[in-house]
Amino acid sequence: MSNRIITISREFGSGGRTIGKKLGEKLGIPCYDAELIRKIAEESGYAEDFIVEKSESTSGGWISNLFTDRSIGQSTEDSIWLIQSKVILELAEKGSCVIVGRCADYALEDNPDMISVFITGDEESKIQHIMETYEYNYNNAKDYMQKTDKRRANYYNYYANKKWGAASTYDLCLNRSKLGFDGCVEAIVDFIRLRQRQKKEEAKTSSEEK
Amino acid sequence: MSNRIITISREFGSGGRTIGKKLGEKLGIPCYDAELIRKIAEESGYAEDFIVEKSESTSGGWISNLFTDRSIGQSTEDSIWLIQSKVILELAEKGSCVIVGRCADYALEDNPDMISVFITGDEESKIQHIMETYEYNYNNAKDYMQKTDKRRANYYNYYANKKWGAASTYDLCLNRSKLGFDGCVEAIVDFIRLRQRQKKEEAKTSSEEK
Repeated sequence: MSNRIITISREFGSGGRTIGKKLGEKLGIPCYDAELIRKIAEESGYAEDFIVEKSESTSGGWISNLFTDRSIGQSTEDSIWLIQSKVILELAEKGSCVIVGRCADYALEDNPDMISVFITGDEESKIQHIMETYEYNYNNAKDYMQKTDKRRANYYNYYANKKWGAASTYDLCLNRSKLGFDGCVEAIVDFIRLRQRQKKEEAKTSSEEK
Repeated sequence: MSNRIITISREFGSGGRTIGKKLGEKLGIPCYDAELIRKIAEESGYAEDFIVEKSESTSGGWISNLFTDRSIGQSTEDSIWLIQSKVILELAEKGSCVIVGRCADYALEDNPDMISVFITGDEESKIQHIMETYEYNYNNAKDYMQKTDKRRANYYNYYANKKWGAASTYDLCLNRSKLGFDGCVEAIVDFIRLRQRQKKEEAKTSSEEK
């Protein structure tokens, strides 16, 4: 069986992180989330909190670069982006895994074993999830959700050549409010099985043609 | 078994229409596509070509309305929108079906049996599909694809309160370039089965609680 590399991108509050963890457990393969940040911190020498902050912000692009000392060479954000991409490629090289966030779908877009998933949710259900997880009131949860998604979109759209949250960016998008956490895990497992069957048939057809 | 109402929205060239047709055949339920246009034509008294043209354009919104005789009352596009929504609701009322296009996911958003699907595809593979289907050259196919998707997005974003092509608008989004036509059909069938299982369990839990 070929490797199963599943990247999970998600709207804030959709529960994509929980789904990634449950999926890893169900498939018996590692799920990289906090561990990925630790690895990037180790390789870059920056603190984990700093990585989290910088890996959701951009260097501001060429206009900002014109007016700063970053006009020549890489910004801190650019360096973290490169290290992050390198760590993701190395993890995928090691074998089957689930990777949550960090634009892993873009870093791995040339990997034929990769299945990119995006998890969404209805607004009210995401706000409820954030209120429960972070003990925020309704307005703070909504504000936090909107700002986080904007930061994620800006970061992705700056570094990747695709659009964050657009259906066309991913192989599979699922609404957690419709399916629930376990339902999303099941749907992803179904999708992986379908791809494995297709690959087997392709390999059979290709060997028969030789 | 509860009704299965599947709406298929799609990027132009992704093959969503073919997938809808194959899905209807596989499930043994009607797929409304051209037939839907015929019904809207019948109810509205307009010609089918006129319906197709007008149901992908907007009346221009309030600015346009200020300068036209449509400032009071409905535009032709608005009337067609209302008839189209009514026809879609009536078809869904009749029983299980697949409905391709026509913002059916929005018309049916309060229907608990509805599963909204969006089909995407990689740019080159969509262009190839359009070249084969319409016998266009590469540049014409690309131009036609981009303009059609822009029109579809404008129309949907004007009449619905969601965003066309955004993962968060739909229950399930699939990339046809990854799965192929039959693979998409299989993935949708898997999704329907999962939802039917979930509904059965919900009904069981709810009856046990009583």
